[in-house]
Amino acid sequence: MSPPREDAVLSTMQDVPLTVTRILMHGALVHGSSQITTWTGEGEPHRRSFREAAERANQLAHALRDDLGVTGDERVATLMWNNAEHVEAYYAIPSMGAVLHTLNLRLPAEQLTFIVNHAADRVVVVNGSLLPLLASLLPHLPTVEHVVVSGPGDRSLLDGTSVRVHEYEELLAGKPTTYDWPELDERQAAAMCYTSGTTGDPKGVVYSHRSIYLHSMQVNMAQSMGLTDRDTSLVVVPQFHVNAWGLPHATFMSGINMLMPDRFLQPAPIAEMIESERPTHAAAVPTIWQGLLAELHAKPRDVSSLTQVTIGGSACPPSLMTAFDELGMRVCHAWGMTETSPLGTIARPPAHAVGTDEEVAYRLTQGRFPAGVEARLTGPSGERLPWDGESAGELEVRGPWIAGAYYGGQGAEPLRPADKFSEDGWLKTGDVGTISPDGFLTLTDRAKDVIKSGGEWISSVDLENALMSHPDVAEAAVVAVPDDKWGERPLATVVLKQGATADFATLRTFLAEEGRIAKWQLPERWTIIESVPKTSVGKFDKKVLRRQYAEGALDVTTL
Amino acid sequence: MSPPREDAVLSTMQDVPLTVTRILMHGALVHGSSQITTWTGEGEPHRRSFREAAERANQLAHALRDDLGVTGDERVATLMWNNAEHVEAYYAIPSMGAVLHTLNLRLPAEQLTFIVNHAADRVVVVNGSLLPLLASLLPHLPTVEHVVVSGPGDRSLLDGTSVRVHEYEELLAGKPTTYDWPELDERQAAAMCYTSGTTGDPKGVVYSHRSIYLHSMQVNMAQSMGLTDRDTSLVVVPQFHVNAWGLPHATFMSGINMLMPDRFLQPAPIAEMIESERPTHAAAVPTIWQGLLAELHAKPRDVSSLTQVTIGGSACPPSLMTAFDELGMRVCHAWGMTETSPLGTIARPPAHAVGTDEEVAYRLTQGRFPAGVEARLTGPSGERLPWDGESAGELEVRGPWIAGAYYGGQGAEPLRPADKFSEDGWLKTGDVGTISPDGFLTLTDRAKDVIKSGGEWISSVDLENALMSHPDVAEAAVVAVPDDKWGERPLATVVLKQGATADFATLRTFLAEEGRIAKWQLPERWTIIESVPKTSVGKFDKKVLRRQYAEGALDVTTL
Repeated sequence: MSPPREDAVLSTMQDVPLTVTRILMHGALVHGSSQITTWTGEGEPHRRSFREAAERANQLAHALRDDLGVTGDERVATLMWNNAEHVEAYYAIPSMGAVLHTLNLRLPAEQLTFIVNHAADRVVVVNGSLLPLLASLLPHLPTVEHVVVSGPGDRSLLDGTSVRVHEYEELLAGKPTTYDWPELDERQAAAMCYTSGTTGDPKGVVYSHRSIYLHSMQVNMAQSMGLTDRDTSLVVVPQFHVNAWGLPHATFMSGINMLMPDRFLQPAPIAEMIESERPTHAAAVPTIWQGLLAELHAKPRDVSSLTQVTIGGSACPPSLMTAFDELGMRVCHAWGMTETSPLGTIARPPAHAVGTDEEVAYRLTQGRFPAGVEARLTGPSGERLPWDGESAGELEVRGPWIAGAYYGGQGAEPLRPADKFSEDGWLKTGDVGTISPDGFLTLTDRAKDVIKSGGEWISSVDLENALMSHPDVAEAAVVAVPDDKWGERPLATVVLKQGATADFATLRTFLAEEGRIAKWQLPERWTIIESVPKTSVGKFDKKVLRRQYAEGALDVTTL
Repeated sequence: MSPPREDAVLSTMQDVPLTVTRILMHGALVHGSSQITTWTGEGEPHRRSFREAAERANQLAHALRDDLGVTGDERVATLMWNNAEHVEAYYAIPSMGAVLHTLNLRLPAEQLTFIVNHAADRVVVVNGSLLPLLASLLPHLPTVEHVVVSGPGDRSLLDGTSVRVHEYEELLAGKPTTYDWPELDERQAAAMCYTSGTTGDPKGVVYSHRSIYLHSMQVNMAQSMGLTDRDTSLVVVPQFHVNAWGLPHATFMSGINMLMPDRFLQPAPIAEMIESERPTHAAAVPTIWQGLLAELHAKPRDVSSLTQVTIGGSACPPSLMTAFDELGMRVCHAWGMTETSPLGTIARPPAHAVGTDEEVAYRLTQGRFPAGVEARLTGPSGERLPWDGESAGELEVRGPWIAGAYYGGQGAEPLRPADKFSEDGWLKTGDVGTISPDGFLTLTDRAKDVIKSGGEWISSVDLENALMSHPDVAEAAVVAVPDDKWGERPLATVVLKQGATADFATLRTFLAEEGRIAKWQLPERWTIIESVPKTSVGKFDKKVLRRQYAEGALDVTTL
């Protein structure tokens, strides 16, 4: 596209900013009777209407401003499960002009400490059940002055620390239920979330009021999740994980009821809440669904209300999709990342595929790009690749809810590392894949794991999946290793099943059979290992293997 | 809300403008195989994919720029039916940075002339079938230099005029199918449409790229029309009428197929195209549907594909809604105006009403406000009224796709008449009604027709409907007349059926019976007239009655 015109004429439309405040006010006013139901583990779940939650959000804003002195662009952190109080914080903090900073309670302590210090959080709202975690971190968090505690938990854990401790309910009590919200610039920061990359320090993504508003509209489009006030969404994906995929905002925009699991994320209570509260929609990562499936096989329950299940975070195994289909729960794949708010694609099969053999293939892709997300594929030499469903390149995306930088820290310039953002401002996702002519994305590898061989890319994941389909192979990881002639070539590291006898030549022949792997992609270098090294979240830790190879610690056979 | 903060921090999101260009590119790329089907009256309809239409839009932009010299913010007018070429103009003109100006071919000649001259249109794209109309206007249109003709029609009608005549297809032929679109400011003008008010000159509403983009997202939200690429929308509402309610844009955003009737708007061809093309959705004003219903009763056809019918423009009579329900075509009421892009409300019943007696009552309201439209009611003394479903006031609205001014003319400041825009920038709709606590709008009158009596409002429409329910009354119009004590009081003007004998006292008693009308609202002044004066579009022309009363031309009895 060529540069903007200077003779542009403005329209006669009103100039109304797109803000979280407006979503709040709309939800409170037009959908005031929609419900947030929070699971309590025993007895009746806790129920609060959108109107009540909005009034409490107004009270919370008064408390934060008047009692705790929160002003300006200050970050207010939450260390909370999914519950009504967390939704109140979601609205109060951005609407008053401050920045909601959700803390991922699953991160290692050193990363959490880094994040709180980098964001310079002065206030933390915490669930009582998470006080053991917060108390262990507090000695390393010099910026934190106030801790606001909500829900059951041992307050004495904070004794002896230097912070001021407040009770959430006591802060709200008696505060006015209306608030004169400031008129905000829609490009102003509303919320932030740090990425939990496996290398380097976590990076802060700062969402704007505009990006949240637009993302919420997108989530509610019929072509996307397409929920209405007739739906109840079981929000399993944590509110500390990319704004729970935008659901706490999308729900207020359309009056969608929320079912919040709080800390009860085990398969049994999840199955129970589905049976008793009858949500129509649920959103979570595959691990949760694997667990639920086992639970339902062990103890069947009526989960028939659940007709749409959004799965993201990592690829949904075909077997899981089939198993859910058989239970009447239709899985819809989605792809995104912290940097994409997160909705980047969603796998609704195109009209022509519905009811045909193609349908499942479409559903197993990462999904289709919505109107707000532009995409392009960049090949090994930086060239643009066609959307032909075959050319694999690194996915780059652009759009009003896509990050163009990372938070630099208070007063510092934003960070734009060249490996994450292109010169013309697109996000480099670090994911490698193909795009079909009708805009469906299929991811095949991470860019850091792909093997760059003679100007072409070899997918490490494809090789691993092919290897692991051999009956003798328990696990296999493939990493790139330097090669004088080709730049890089694949090294196959294989864990054999107990008593298995297959040798490397047999496995190599197996890969080449039935069109599994193209001949030029077959590994020459092979090694047997005891187990594949894993990261804290259970993913293959390939940098360990690459280091072991570089250090000569692996016993490599070349075929 | 209080004023914007100065210490606001910007987010790290990309700054990507919301433009018509991006909707075009998305539709062409991701939904390239979706179809625009244009009815041709005989034989096969004409079919064109989104990809083909987009390529032709690119060619049209080249032609307009290179051959006709269209630059900058220039208005390019269309005088066209709903068809694929009109969609191409919808995208080419705004995307190149110019302003699409749709001309309402149903307006009286003097209004059309005023509009073209006020907008200073230099280029008109016209359907051949509309050349008789254009030729009759051209002598009064000094700014028009170029006429581009598409489709069958007698070109010789333009002989002897001073304009240069171009064939649409010849202009496009051989032009590149790609275009280096300018990067536009989202607040730049994209399209304009003049209101056809019954008083004063027509007023131009100028839509921005941003307003069109946001309105399209809203149309596609599940809570709104909620269409996907599995749908085909029969777009009967004209493209010259508030951008065909946003459908030509919403369709490209989600890959929704379009069925375009071109000039075949009579009940028989509409019924035929529904039966043969099987659209799932249709949008039109009540008059069209009344005609279709009669046609279907005369000659039944299979219209079972049509599960959603959006009705707007004026209120849908309950009998029409019931009749359509019985045919399996579910009517969804919507309200809007040229100044609201137009989607202001849509009547999807709330979850709790579905399947109950309340459902129809909700469906007969004008509908519920979506997140992008803020609403308030202003009473007779300028006070804000509650959303209690009872307090009637003038509806004022605010939002990113609502007009805040009218086009002033080339180089002139926008117009902000005080009777149309409040001091704080809200649009005064001129409609009077109530809003329920859950955000459903019920319109009861036009502000100019309501009777302001002693600080309270009396609905002229309620009185008319009550009067017309008496068996002796053929028609009745009620207007406000000056009153020394009350400010204004209602004057009932009644047309009796042939041979009817009811006198005024009987009619007054009838109004008071069964709670039809509150006692203080009953008219004292009565007159018999031969027929109610009508406007060119068949609405009651009450200003004629008010003038006749003021001039003493009516024989008024006071009870």
